[in-house]
Amino acid sequence: MCRIAVFMGSASDEELVRPCLEVLEQLHIPYFVTVTSAHRTPERTEELMRGLEEKGAQIFICAAGMAAHLAGAVAARTLKPVIGIPLAASPLGGMDALLSTVQMPPGFPVATVALDKAGARNAAWLAAQILALSDAEIAERFAAARRDMQTAVLRAAEKIEQAYGPQWNKD
Amino acid sequence: MCRIAVFMGSASDEELVRPCLEVLEQLHIPYFVTVTSAHRTPERTEELMRGLEEKGAQIFICAAGMAAHLAGAVAARTLKPVIGIPLAASPLGGMDALLSTVQMPPGFPVATVALDKAGARNAAWLAAQILALSDAEIAERFAAARRDMQTAVLRAAEKIEQAYGPQWNKD
Amino acid sequence: MCRIAVFMGSASDEELVRPCLEVLEQLHIPYFVTVTSAHRTPERTEELMRGLEEKGAQIFICAAGMAAHLAGAVAARTLKPVIGIPLAASPLGGMDALLSTVQMPPGFPVATVALDKAGARNAAWLAAQILALSDAEIAERFAAARRDMQTAVLRAAEKIEQAYGPQWNKD
Amino acid sequence: MCRIAVFMGSASDEELVRPCLEVLEQLHIPYFVTVTSAHRTPERTEELMRGLEEKGAQIFICAAGMAAHLAGAVAARTLKPVIGIPLAASPLGGMDALLSTVQMPPGFPVATVALDKAGARNAAWLAAQILALSDAEIAERFAAARRDMQTAVLRAAEKIEQAYGPQWNKD
Amino acid sequence: MCRIAVFMGSASDEELVRPCLEVLEQLHIPYFVTVTSAHRTPERTEELMRGLEEKGAQIFICAAGMAAHLAGAVAARTLKPVIGIPLAASPLGGMDALLSTVQMPPGFPVATVALDKAGARNAAWLAAQILALSDAEIAERFAAARRDMQTAVLRAAEKIEQAYGPQWNKD
Amino acid sequence: MCRIAVFMGSASDEELVRPCLEVLEQLHIPYFVTVTSAHRTPERTEELMRGLEEKGAQIFICAAGMAAHLAGAVAARTLKPVIGIPLAASPLGGMDALLSTVQMPPGFPVATVALDKAGARNAAWLAAQILALSDAEIAERFAAARRDMQTAVLRAAEKIEQAYGPQWNKD
Amino acid sequence: MCRIAVFMGSASDEELVRPCLEVLEQLHIPYFVTVTSAHRTPERTEELMRGLEEKGAQIFICAAGMAAHLAGAVAARTLKPVIGIPLAASPLGGMDALLSTVQMPPGFPVATVALDKAGARNAAWLAAQILALSDAEIAERFAAARRDMQTAVLRAAEKIEQAYGPQWNKD
Amino acid sequence: MCRIAVFMGSASDEELVRPCLEVLEQLHIPYFVTVTSAHRTPERTEELMRGLEEKGAQIFICAAGMAAHLAGAVAARTLKPVIGIPLAASPLGGMDALLSTVQMPPGFPVATVALDKAGARNAAWLAAQILALSDAEIAERFAAARRDMQTAVLRAAEKIEQAYGPQWNKD
Repeated sequence: MCRIAVFMGSASDEELVRPCLEVLEQLHIPYFVTVTSAHRTPERTEELMRGLEEKGAQIFICAAGMAAHLAGAVAARTLKPVIGIPLAASPLGGMDALLSTVQMPPGFPVATVALDKAGARNAAWLAAQILALSDAEIAERFAAARRDMQTAVLRAAEKIEQAYGPQWNKD
Repeated sequence: MCRIAVFMGSASDEELVRPCLEVLEQLHIPYFVTVTSAHRTPERTEELMRGLEEKGAQIFICAAGMAAHLAGAVAARTLKPVIGIPLAASPLGGMDALLSTVQMPPGFPVATVALDKAGARNAAWLAAQILALSDAEIAERFAAARRDMQTAVLRAAEKIEQAYGPQWNKD
Repeated sequence: MCRIAVFMGSASDEELVRPCLEVLEQLHIPYFVTVTSAHRTPERTEELMRGLEEKGAQIFICAAGMAAHLAGAVAARTLKPVIGIPLAASPLGGMDALLSTVQMPPGFPVATVALDKAGARNAAWLAAQILALSDAEIAERFAAARRDMQTAVLRAAEKIEQAYGPQWNKD
Repeated sequence: MCRIAVFMGSASDEELVRPCLEVLEQLHIPYFVTVTSAHRTPERTEELMRGLEEKGAQIFICAAGMAAHLAGAVAARTLKPVIGIPLAASPLGGMDALLSTVQMPPGFPVATVALDKAGARNAAWLAAQILALSDAEIAERFAAARRDMQTAVLRAAEKIEQAYGPQWNKD
Repeated sequence: MCRIAVFMGSASDEELVRPCLEVLEQLHIPYFVTVTSAHRTPERTEELMRGLEEKGAQIFICAAGMAAHLAGAVAARTLKPVIGIPLAASPLGGMDALLSTVQMPPGFPVATVALDKAGARNAAWLAAQILALSDAEIAERFAAARRDMQTAVLRAAEKIEQAYGPQWNKD
Repeated sequence: MCRIAVFMGSASDEELVRPCLEVLEQLHIPYFVTVTSAHRTPERTEELMRGLEEKGAQIFICAAGMAAHLAGAVAARTLKPVIGIPLAASPLGGMDALLSTVQMPPGFPVATVALDKAGARNAAWLAAQILALSDAEIAERFAAARRDMQTAVLRAAEKIEQAYGPQWNKD
Repeated sequence: MCRIAVFMGSASDEELVRPCLEVLEQLHIPYFVTVTSAHRTPERTEELMRGLEEKGAQIFICAAGMAAHLAGAVAARTLKPVIGIPLAASPLGGMDALLSTVQMPPGFPVATVALDKAGARNAAWLAAQILALSDAEIAERFAAARRDMQTAVLRAAEKIEQAYGPQWNKD
Repeated sequence: MCRIAVFMGSASDEELVRPCLEVLEQLHIPYFVTVTSAHRTPERTEELMRGLEEKGAQIFICAAGMAAHLAGAVAARTLKPVIGIPLAASPLGGMDALLSTVQMPPGFPVATVALDKAGARNAAWLAAQILALSDAEIAERFAAARRDMQTAVLRAAEKIEQAYGPQWNKD
């Protein structure tokens, strides 16, 4: 079974999308990832979607840059939740992809996350939160991951605090 | 039972948020709506969240303008999906609320939708899509609503086509 | 025969699109106009396109606001030129529609014109320029229209010059 | 015969414009390319235009950065379609060139494409679409190029799918 | 004699440009104002410029909105200083006109002032500063106007100070 | 004694600045308010500053729009904290005033708050927080005001909750 | 005693925040610096704040990028002044962090300074200005630092003036 | 005699300002260049200005980044024309400096040119245009420089035309 379908608009997006896949693997969420384009391969995108829904895909994650229509094109053809990762792939700093992804018309939402790698990770975390509503194992792994994030902050804090020492003793 | 908690940051947001509530009612999804502020009532926000999760809240929808921290503050304290509606409540045209809502750090996604009323509606549609993953009735109502949207386009099309007549016969 | 297909994403776009139709009528270019949506009625959009191409449509003009995918969705499914009119339909001043329309990936251009009514007019003028490459009548009407624009400037100039009089005589 | 005239505002634009020329060559569309400036050589630009129209130029493609007036200056002096490629040549990320190119007043459209290399390619594709309206050979080459783009997506898809394997078998 | 030529791109700009003319009249600087367009009447613009230079025009002031090329088109054809007033005439808040006016390439500066009426006034003040370099009367009138501006601030200050009274006595 | 000096750049800013004065009065903080301009009355601004510092002014609050230099000009001439309120007084939505106020060079900070009325209020609250560091009465009044803000949220919440009733009982 | 608490949202912010610490050390102002996150460690942030206020912290300085909520989250839970340093940590050039930091709602100001290192320095200078209101030693050190800044300008001026020599003698 | 005063806000601006000085030297216009700051050395800036005006300075050119107040501060204290060069010295791509420089209030214009090196060159060209109004030698050198710019375009054109050969002979 494949629960999450991850689409990227171009092979060149792989590096920015990889953190999404890493989080999905960390949470043991089975996914299918491929390249498909809203503009270059619209029929394939539709067929893929149908096939993946039949195989159990519950959420679509779409990453694209520039006039990022991929998430919207998928949202137009499914009742499942669609998560959009806008990519900064032009000199406009990703503002093009962000607005093209988030400003969807009523009835066809795209759950938009942050730009680039931070967004790629959050697409996976958001998918996990959605699945966790009816999957206690994912909920537990997600809760554990959150605790790890807290621990990471505490370690970073300790390191910084030691590096800059108790300043208030200096004077 | 209350499945969706809808928070708005200020009473003045009510008009922009109402379309969200209308869609939830149209889909028969029980919700709880209130005003609570990430900055003015942070403790109340936390207590509300805990109480609502106990009463069955599965998704949080947060609407806020300016430095819109409400969705992020909620996301920091729950494992449930959080949907953010950025509101254009300053001279900056909503760019402030949009960026404050969508650019969340890894691990704490906010599923961001469009600005203002379009986004309010889409927050509800997105919540419905998420619940529909394990609720066939909502799925059916959502599918019906989508068909209604198509019908509305067809009617609008008919009206426009008649108004501007078969132009290619004119010459 | 219908040479130009004009699609608007929503019935509420009619007022902004009308100047496009007026220019087409002024140039005696037969057109077909309707409402169709990249997201709400994707199949209808495809069928319409095919039908209109069979009826002789040579150019598609698409007007849409927000995450304006309509022109791109059409561009993905035709070899004909597609002209996009971005509409300012959100608090972002049309920046969303502009970037969603113009930043198309290689191979699927959308000939983007200005925002709102100025762009609606220019979509028609651009279509006329394209048709005029192999249609001397349209070329002549277009040339005449340009002369009228010059005359209009001259008249406006005369009026302003008289209103503010020969200032250099005042002292 | 020269069907397409390609103007760049400065010799330093050559690298960004080259993809446009490559697509034109791929489609066997004869073109003339040169450097000419709306501001530094306005008379030469006008003379060039007239000469090229006499030699058969049907479409003007203009690439410029900053206050990109070149396409507009050409559009002011021809009835032929003008395609504008905005270049990101200042710290403003190309927003200056994009707005200077696309926001043309009624009657003088510039068919604006994406920024930089993506736009350069699309200027050529758009020119090909326009010529293909009355040139079956270009239409066929364009259709073939589109099929190649689809094949490229399929190959990239295959590679990514293999690299990340059938994830849904892992668990 | 006419020392300043004021061009507006469209008759609809008159209201925004009028403050410029008022300041010129206040300073007794003879000017000629008309409507002329970089795109609709390029030849007329050139002829006007030549004629006005012969009649003594020393500075060109150009006001335009959207892809505001007028100032640049004038700058390309004169050695005289050109002052550009960007007008907010589209939903983009004048950002289009500002960038189209200010981002001129080396050798062809446009002295850009603020948007709309504030800029219209400043175009006239800047022209006065330039003429004042070799015209003592204008210099004196300009200095007097500056003193009036100071007086206006003092009067406004007095009014505000009285309205809100000596607050530090209240407690 | 006057503890806070409030400067606005123009009499037309009064309406946007008034909420600042209301908060200062609510907190019984003695203030002096006037109109003074960084550009029109630079000497007066300097003299005022010196006079007010002698009368006990501890904090300067400066409100200005467009190229909002007032706060920076004050910051350049005092060692006291300077708070800047950017005003949206041009078609650019206040982005000009915001960037002109906040992007100060090292050594000359301007404590920048939100645009327009929200910022005007926050300038006063921030000033109160600073004074409260060594003034227990202001601290107490500030704490009380915060409690009032919480009460206001609770009342708004109650009203909204009642208006939309216990939705989860409806089904 | 610790007078200033400096929080950064992530260990990766250290390099951009360091100039803040250097200025605090230069002024002999005792500070405590650590990593803490509004989203990953909200409870720790609250506890830290309470503990530091008890140890004498008078001002909070918070540095964060993207949807920079840290300063706002701190501002929601203290009566002390909060200074926010927006960091450019995404492809949007820091516009996201700037707007998330500065656009706070009434009652909860964040004294926002410039982006990145310039802002980090100014956060410290602003904190010093606030403390200097009741601490003559800090006031004196601040005044001395300002004099050093002037001297640095004079030295740079001298160097540039010599490098480019008295140009007006050249001709 | 020194006709042009060039001020840069920081020694680190030297590289971006140098093209301005090179153009002034090319035109044999005597200038004085130094570092002075609107914020760090306001008195020195005023004294410099007075001294330079006495020595014959007719135009002030001011280059600054971030909240670029230098040109405005100079404009507030002179009747002479002031030219502002906005520098991209922050992550905001120069938008901060551009708006801080151009959006001056009525009565105190800053003749704003393009960002960075292009603007530095244009500040010098604009100054030359102003001086040329009453200095025939500068006018002649300026005209010659314009001819050289045209020649440079022609040479670049020749090179590009040869490199890409007569494409229209290929088929």
